[in-house]
Amino acid sequence: MYQFIENGSVTVPKGFKASGVFCGIKKKKKDLALIYSDTPCIAAGTFTLNKVKAAPILITRDIIEKNQKVKAVLINSGNANACTGDPGHKDALLMQKWCAESLHILPEEVLIGSTGVIGQKLPIEKLFSGINHAVENLSHHGGMDAAKAIMTTDTKIKSFAVCIQLNGGIVTLGAICKGSGMIAPNMATMLGFITTDADIEKSLLQKILLEAVDISFNKISVDGESSTNDMVLLLANGQSGISINESSDDLIIFVEALNTLCKEMAKSIVSDGEGATKLVTISVKNAKSKNDADLIGKSIANSSLVKTAIYGADANWGRILSAAGHSGAEIDPTKVSISFNELPVLLPNFNLTLDENSAHKILSLPEYVINVDIGLGSGEATWWTCDLTEDYIKINSDYRS
Amino acid sequence: MYQFIENGSVTVPKGFKASGVFCGIKKKKKDLALIYSDTPCIAAGTFTLNKVKAAPILITRDIIEKNQKVKAVLINSGNANACTGDPGHKDALLMQKWCAESLHILPEEVLIGSTGVIGQKLPIEKLFSGINHAVENLSHHGGMDAAKAIMTTDTKIKSFAVCIQLNGGIVTLGAICKGSGMIAPNMATMLGFITTDADIEKSLLQKILLEAVDISFNKISVDGESSTNDMVLLLANGQSGISINESSDDLIIFVEALNTLCKEMAKSIVSDGEGATKLVTISVKNAKSKNDADLIGKSIANSSLVKTAIYGADANWGRILSAAGHSGAEIDPTKVSISFNELPVLLPNFNLTLDENSAHKILSLPEYVINVDIGLGSGEATWWTCDLTEDYIKINSDYRS
Repeated sequence: MYQFIENGSVTVPKGFKASGVFCGIKKKKKDLALIYSDTPCIAAGTFTLNKVKAAPILITRDIIEKNQKVKAVLINSGNANACTGDPGHKDALLMQKWCAESLHILPEEVLIGSTGVIGQKLPIEKLFSGINHAVENLSHHGGMDAAKAIMTTDTKIKSFAVCIQLNGGIVTLGAICKGSGMIAPNMATMLGFITTDADIEKSLLQKILLEAVDISFNKISVDGESSTNDMVLLLANGQSGISINESSDDLIIFVEALNTLCKEMAKSIVSDGEGATKLVTISVKNAKSKNDADLIGKSIANSSLVKTAIYGADANWGRILSAAGHSGAEIDPTKVSISFNELPVLLPNFNLTLDENSAHKILSLPEYVINVDIGLGSGEATWWTCDLTEDYIKINSDYRS
Repeated sequence: MYQFIENGSVTVPKGFKASGVFCGIKKKKKDLALIYSDTPCIAAGTFTLNKVKAAPILITRDIIEKNQKVKAVLINSGNANACTGDPGHKDALLMQKWCAESLHILPEEVLIGSTGVIGQKLPIEKLFSGINHAVENLSHHGGMDAAKAIMTTDTKIKSFAVCIQLNGGIVTLGAICKGSGMIAPNMATMLGFITTDADIEKSLLQKILLEAVDISFNKISVDGESSTNDMVLLLANGQSGISINESSDDLIIFVEALNTLCKEMAKSIVSDGEGATKLVTISVKNAKSKNDADLIGKSIANSSLVKTAIYGADANWGRILSAAGHSGAEIDPTKVSISFNELPVLLPNFNLTLDENSAHKILSLPEYVINVDIGLGSGEATWWTCDLTEDYIKINSDYRS
């Protein structure tokens, strides 16, 4: 019904162009991305719950909440424009205005985002020429450049596209994202920009985006932090001519594709977590409630002791159980069982079936699943985490310098 | 009114002996500690809130809750006897029984504790001769040996004593503790054993211990984890002949000394946090409520990004503000001010007064204070944290091997 397109990006859906340029916020690398639709888009979004919100978050959220149609998203990297007060807010409005002028559209048709260091003034003068440059460079092949331009400590370009066969014809989804450190639960926990040529009305678009984000970006953990700048946006320009509504059969297929796309985006962020060498799925089953399953998954995914054990390929199921135990969820430790992929490690009543050699083989894989069966109910949750390594420390102890 | 005694320990209060011996759970180092009072003690205690509780925790908590008088505390290190099921519970009862027999007292007069690897069977046969050895070695100078014998990844012996001048005469407090990784909020978050020769009845002793632990051990963070085995015990044998009760003036002085002792113990644990090189006090003022101040202090103290910035001596106030912002507490970022010791860094309305050179000097000190003024109310909280370094990763990625 749907399939991923190799080397796909936000420019796969009809009518979307993108670019990524260097404007001088960073020392050398691309630091300004632009996504543009030649017809107006319905836009949905979800934003950081951190009480400290960067200026671009407030401006973009306002446009989304007012249900305004938009045509462009402009994102700079290298500077978060967060904790910058009134001058920062003015800078954010300026970059929005300049972009609108250069594109000959209205300022409120431009969504904006920033990522990078907190608390430093945006070098706004550099954006002026940068924005014109980004507009000039807009192209149907510019998705990868845009993906590059939103990276900070990311080591891999994160770009995707999905082709979906609906009853009415083909629609496509494209996406780029970034995020490496400061990834944590709570909601939109990085930057993600999704485009589609499907025709969907605002409230439905917002609803399916929130649901997709809840089972993807909100279920990943690199370091338990939640940034001032996180957002995920979804823009639909309708250019496929195929309309998806609440009652259409196509909705189920489209939602499934969107959910899978968001999970792939989220996993790409975890597996590129700062210093990370492993991508581990935490699958919690049979918790007392869905909420309990979520608390347990989150606690395991966030545990520094579990994450260092993952790094050391150490079958330390005790740390997994201990993390579940201090999650706040209902736990009877005698009812818990744990397995690594298909290998049972702990059975109820602390029956240990751990075969250290087999376990070590699995734990040395770049990707595996830790299954935790709580044995109390039917609540389920899936989280993704990475290991905590010396490189995380190195990256974060001198990020500013 | 009170002063710390150099090289003091649990054996400073009258009537207490202690020992620390090697029994073979660890490869070479002391791994069995015994504290003994020659007269019965009133005992207070506080225990881990982790739902996964080790066998010795359950047994000791039961004795404390039944208000039984006790004479001894036996603690092994190297093995936590946690997640060991019924066999583990039997082993814990056995170590209690053998200790009672060797001391010619009742099993319920022996409190027990364990610390070390989770999920491995206690080599109980080694404890049989070890316990006799510990009993034989009991002495009025054995406090330091006991402090050594409860260490796991600790690099420093943690032993204290305080001499308190009351109106009625002198009483003393002694203490040993351990804890290095797996230190986190929530309550008794490591092992701490406090002795006193004051005469205090149970409910008052329990009350002042809980209050002291709440402003000390419950305010420290090494890695946000909360172990299966944490406890703090306070034993009072009354041998000073000085009685302290709810209405006595001496209570205030005694409580102040106990609080200070617990804070020193807690700080000694943080500053010896796994891989830690710095001890940082997080002082939160003028939050909307006491609870909000606590949430903010906890969020900053637990933030991996703040902890790596502390390691890098990086004046990254943005990470501090961001951690406060996702603490769940009420925050208006424009009202927050931050200083390092006496050096203002951020003033309200994002007025930046950061002098990088002066800041770097303070942040290079082994101890300093991060002051965070929320500007919304009068809630206060003090937390202690350490930096997150490569060594934390090294220690925890191969702890079991």
